[in-house]
Amino acid sequence: MTSQAPGSTNGLALERLVFFSDAVMAIAITLLAIDLRLPPAEDLTNRGLLELLAHLAPRFLAFFISFAVIGVYWVAHHRMFRFIAASDGGLILLNLLFLFFVALLPFLTSILGEHGNLSLAAAVYAAGLAAMGFSSSALWMYAVRRRLVLDAVTPALARYLRWRGLIVPIIFLASIPLVFISPFVAQLSWIAVMPAQRILARRSGIDRRP
Amino acid sequence: MTSQAPGSTNGLALERLVFFSDAVMAIAITLLAIDLRLPPAEDLTNRGLLELLAHLAPRFLAFFISFAVIGVYWVAHHRMFRFIAASDGGLILLNLLFLFFVALLPFLTSILGEHGNLSLAAAVYAAGLAAMGFSSSALWMYAVRRRLVLDAVTPALARYLRWRGLIVPIIFLASIPLVFISPFVAQLSWIAVMPAQRILARRSGIDRRP
Amino acid sequence: MTSQAPGSTNGLALERLVFFSDAVMAIAITLLAIDLRLPPAEDLTNRGLLELLAHLAPRFLAFFISFAVIGVYWVAHHRMFRFIAASDGGLILLNLLFLFFVALLPFLTSILGEHGNLSLAAAVYAAGLAAMGFSSSALWMYAVRRRLVLDAVTPALARYLRWRGLIVPIIFLASIPLVFISPFVAQLSWIAVMPAQRILARRSGIDRRP
Amino acid sequence: MTSQAPGSTNGLALERLVFFSDAVMAIAITLLAIDLRLPPAEDLTNRGLLELLAHLAPRFLAFFISFAVIGVYWVAHHRMFRFIAASDGGLILLNLLFLFFVALLPFLTSILGEHGNLSLAAAVYAAGLAAMGFSSSALWMYAVRRRLVLDAVTPALARYLRWRGLIVPIIFLASIPLVFISPFVAQLSWIAVMPAQRILARRSGIDRRP
Repeated sequence: MTSQAPGSTNGLALERLVFFSDAVMAIAITLLAIDLRLPPAEDLTNRGLLELLAHLAPRFLAFFISFAVIGVYWVAHHRMFRFIAASDGGLILLNLLFLFFVALLPFLTSILGEHGNLSLAAAVYAAGLAAMGFSSSALWMYAVRRRLVLDAVTPALARYLRWRGLIVPIIFLASIPLVFISPFVAQLSWIAVMPAQRILARRSGIDRRP
Repeated sequence: MTSQAPGSTNGLALERLVFFSDAVMAIAITLLAIDLRLPPAEDLTNRGLLELLAHLAPRFLAFFISFAVIGVYWVAHHRMFRFIAASDGGLILLNLLFLFFVALLPFLTSILGEHGNLSLAAAVYAAGLAAMGFSSSALWMYAVRRRLVLDAVTPALARYLRWRGLIVPIIFLASIPLVFISPFVAQLSWIAVMPAQRILARRSGIDRRP
Repeated sequence: MTSQAPGSTNGLALERLVFFSDAVMAIAITLLAIDLRLPPAEDLTNRGLLELLAHLAPRFLAFFISFAVIGVYWVAHHRMFRFIAASDGGLILLNLLFLFFVALLPFLTSILGEHGNLSLAAAVYAAGLAAMGFSSSALWMYAVRRRLVLDAVTPALARYLRWRGLIVPIIFLASIPLVFISPFVAQLSWIAVMPAQRILARRSGIDRRP
Repeated sequence: MTSQAPGSTNGLALERLVFFSDAVMAIAITLLAIDLRLPPAEDLTNRGLLELLAHLAPRFLAFFISFAVIGVYWVAHHRMFRFIAASDGGLILLNLLFLFFVALLPFLTSILGEHGNLSLAAAVYAAGLAAMGFSSSALWMYAVRRRLVLDAVTPALARYLRWRGLIVPIIFLASIPLVFISPFVAQLSWIAVMPAQRILARRSGIDRRP
């Protein structure tokens, strides 16, 4: 239910929204690696460097997980906005909420990378990534309810994209109890994101492209 | 009063201006979180991590406030440029002035996050954010006076957008004396930004979208 | 003399070049402020914070100068590319050379901000900024010579834009001997950039917009 | 073999993919310089500053090499996407893999800059840059096999672009054994990238532009 502003194409406004989101995601994804730093050391031997690199392994793993997750969310954002035709204040607000969690990701990643052996670190990380996914899904549900989507979006497609978006935050949310068994088990469960998305895509048969 | 340069569409020049501004805002908004860092600590317990996280609470609050403010300013920039049809040297200069304060925001945020209990920190932050808002409003007033806006912009719409832009820096400016009562009271007053914008929008009835 | 590649519009290639340059400049301009950091301090008083802020004054000045300079170069890049119609390998290479110096700017700024009282610091900064300007001018001269510019670009306009671009690096180059009198005098001389550009613009009468 | 999604132009989706990639590369290229930092020092003399700068020489060299390499890869990405007409999930995934190595580049550069005298540092750097190049080539080969390229792309052009992309990672891969002779010799061998690309371009005679 958007009334066009005088003298502006809503398409342009949408384009700027998408552009801004892409820029924030691109910066967050690149800043993830800022935590990968060798401690200052002079006159190192090859063996010494190897030990320092090995010491970074948990941070590297955290970097890899966060890169993959932000990749998944970027693709989801991409996919949703191919079907969104107009924006309004609520959509902009929900998108900013999503970007808020994206901007938090480097911080969450450093918690996981430095203290991934603690259940609290894994729980905080999982909660942050669940919040990121739920805000992304809220954006889609809002767009559908407010009819900001293209006419071509059938109820079935809307439902499919909603579930496809919800699957990731649900997995992260469900992993939180697992951290009390072992933070490592929780991290393993996150890998379920990829096959879960595939299975959903195959079942629905609507859109097999990620 | 812009004379078209030979062989160039002014639209393209405007697009690049908007793009550059978006990029600077996207980077500043993402760099805000760089201050959220745990101090180096090894062999932490869950309780130790919780204490470190609790210790970050003021920085987290400063991050949240700055994120919300830059969101408000981004939306305002967005809104203004939907009505701006041409640029000239003065507009570019005023936009660079606005971006100057945007680039300062991560610094101002770190002052607030680390020393938010000091009245000087809250005052410096409020002054910086007032300056950001006034430069944004100056841009709009300049565009209107120089007739760089679309013909569809009526005097009433121009006035409405001017006040809508001025409300945020006026609140920040007005909060400066409050810091001498308590920095916390000043920070609370900033929350008035959101409802103030809504009331203004409802009263004018011109454009209810943020 | 560019032969169109099959199946590609050169316009798109140019757009991507301009976009990439804008992104690098936007990031560099925002990273300039990363050097503005208060040293870690707890339980500060207002007076203590004021002293820390005062201590940052030289860095703040360096930030301001670099922000203004990158603003000038961004506007110049903007202006040149409004007249460039095609790109080739040489243009891309010269543009990357320009961006190399842009990426160096945060480093040069930190040298100036931390050791601006040393003649060597001012000289290194001035040399870096002269190199940035010369690479930008070289790009324009190359585009003119290789006829990558619009047909509307007259020899007079080409000459004017060449000199307009050269004025900034020439001032930086000329300021290098001044650092041996006093680094402060050299920094003052940089302020001549702005009026020099205006005078040139007024004299030529071709394009008064910055 | 891409079936168009309802209500979306694939061109737009491609544009967003290219934009996101450009943003990540622009950020990575600018973050490379973050490692160029003088150690904190007060009351320095010109001679003292000169020594600190000289001490940074290996990091500066690493910055220069990485800047040149990312420039080469950006141009290659640019070139490939001028011939790519559609995207699918596999292409997006391969592009994210490429960006993963781009995001790693500042880390790899800091290893080389700080410990470039160690054979392990040079080997890790070379391996990372080989991986970056192979993922870029894999993207092209995938696009050709899946017919995501323009009809104008002849088998000869596809082959030429494949080899042009492969030459860089092959040189990096081939340089890894050289590090055991001397890390410096390996670094010298990387300079072969530029002439190798030129020779290939001249031989094929298809597209002489970088």
